[in-house]
Amino acid sequence: MKTDAGVHGHHISQQFNQELEEIKSSMLEMGGLVEHQLGDALSALISADSDLGTTVRAKDDAVNDMEINIDEACNRILARRQPAASDLRLVLAIIKATNDLERIGDEAAKIARLAIELADQGDSSKGYVEIRHIGERVRHMVNMALDAFARYDAEAALAVAREDVSVDLEYGTAMREMITYMIEDPRSITRVLNVIWALRSLERVGDHAKNIAEHVVYMVMGTDVRHAGLSGMEEQVKAELK
Amino acid sequence: MKTDAGVHGHHISQQFNQELEEIKSSMLEMGGLVEHQLGDALSALISADSDLGTTVRAKDDAVNDMEINIDEACNRILARRQPAASDLRLVLAIIKATNDLERIGDEAAKIARLAIELADQGDSSKGYVEIRHIGERVRHMVNMALDAFARYDAEAALAVAREDVSVDLEYGTAMREMITYMIEDPRSITRVLNVIWALRSLERVGDHAKNIAEHVVYMVMGTDVRHAGLSGMEEQVKAELK
Repeated sequence: MKTDAGVHGHHISQQFNQELEEIKSSMLEMGGLVEHQLGDALSALISADSDLGTTVRAKDDAVNDMEINIDEACNRILARRQPAASDLRLVLAIIKATNDLERIGDEAAKIARLAIELADQGDSSKGYVEIRHIGERVRHMVNMALDAFARYDAEAALAVAREDVSVDLEYGTAMREMITYMIEDPRSITRVLNVIWALRSLERVGDHAKNIAEHVVYMVMGTDVRHAGLSGMEEQVKAELK
Repeated sequence: MKTDAGVHGHHISQQFNQELEEIKSSMLEMGGLVEHQLGDALSALISADSDLGTTVRAKDDAVNDMEINIDEACNRILARRQPAASDLRLVLAIIKATNDLERIGDEAAKIARLAIELADQGDSSKGYVEIRHIGERVRHMVNMALDAFARYDAEAALAVAREDVSVDLEYGTAMREMITYMIEDPRSITRVLNVIWALRSLERVGDHAKNIAEHVVYMVMGTDVRHAGLSGMEEQVKAELK
């Protein structure tokens, strides 16, 4: 019943290959938009730019529409082309990565909402250095993960997982600082809590970037490394690349 | 190339039908475990039972293993049986619901960790009424969503989405109370923040239960209602049931 071995580049049907590439491109395009949303949400927060915050929130619908379209395209290709082996893994990885991208988009929209609230709450910028720093790091992680996906590069995916461990540590430090601020100046509680929510959103963006990296490893190697931890993931990837 | 129409109960292959039912049962079994984990995590928190908290954290590995096994079974059935129409939707809905269940398990493990910290932080129980109440509601939502999945019941799924709107309102009220506690008694900040994290985890559990309900609607009706909002989801379900 299976029509082909599913090895990229050896399809009987050129058309099928093209369809797969198109879905992958759509996913990467969605990734680009999400990265952009995240960058704009961070700028809105740091520059107290409510208008930019409003724009980011409005664009979240476009991200959601892309998710639904890509998902439908994946379902169609599963139903019509019945992919096997690495083609099937590619489609499943796209479905999962798209879901993570949509959630990153959600976090960007949340940060944009916090940016608007913080702009209303006056001009203290406590915690903004941390937000900017962690924000840049997780944005870079999203970029690296998408790049690893585009190039079927498991080693690059591993680098994303490594980065996540270090971002989590930095997040912990920033959170302890924010708690200290609140204790020292209880009048700042409402404001600092908004900074805390933004930091937490960024930490989750890092998690989703790591998830995408795990989907890349699954796609390239066929191994599910989602609960293997960093060392387990390293072992798998290194064993494969030997 | 397609072997059958994919309507349940009309399979040429009884074996295939049985395989699908087995995967669905495994997913529901995982759901049962996750519900249990959530209940235990709440008990651990409310009764300041560190041992129970530790047990919940240890069992999270079992939840993760179930996710990987179900995912592999789904991938195998996609590759070997090449399901179409409603069978394909069932498999895709199981893959997505399993992912949400795993995340609910993660939130239960987080609540268990917070339970251990709170037990160490002495015997104030501010916010516990809210945790218990919202906790019971979201646990019920998970139960309703799994039940709707088991019975292919889009109307029951709709009830979960309705419940989520009301839980979100209650969560907002509880959060404002917690912020008031912190402002009134800054010495309680560290402790109340842990209560806030627990509430936030519960709110996310409600979101995941709603996601599962959306997967049920997709599975039963073939319509993606993820970003339609409650009213959009109601319209879809009612139009179909007319």
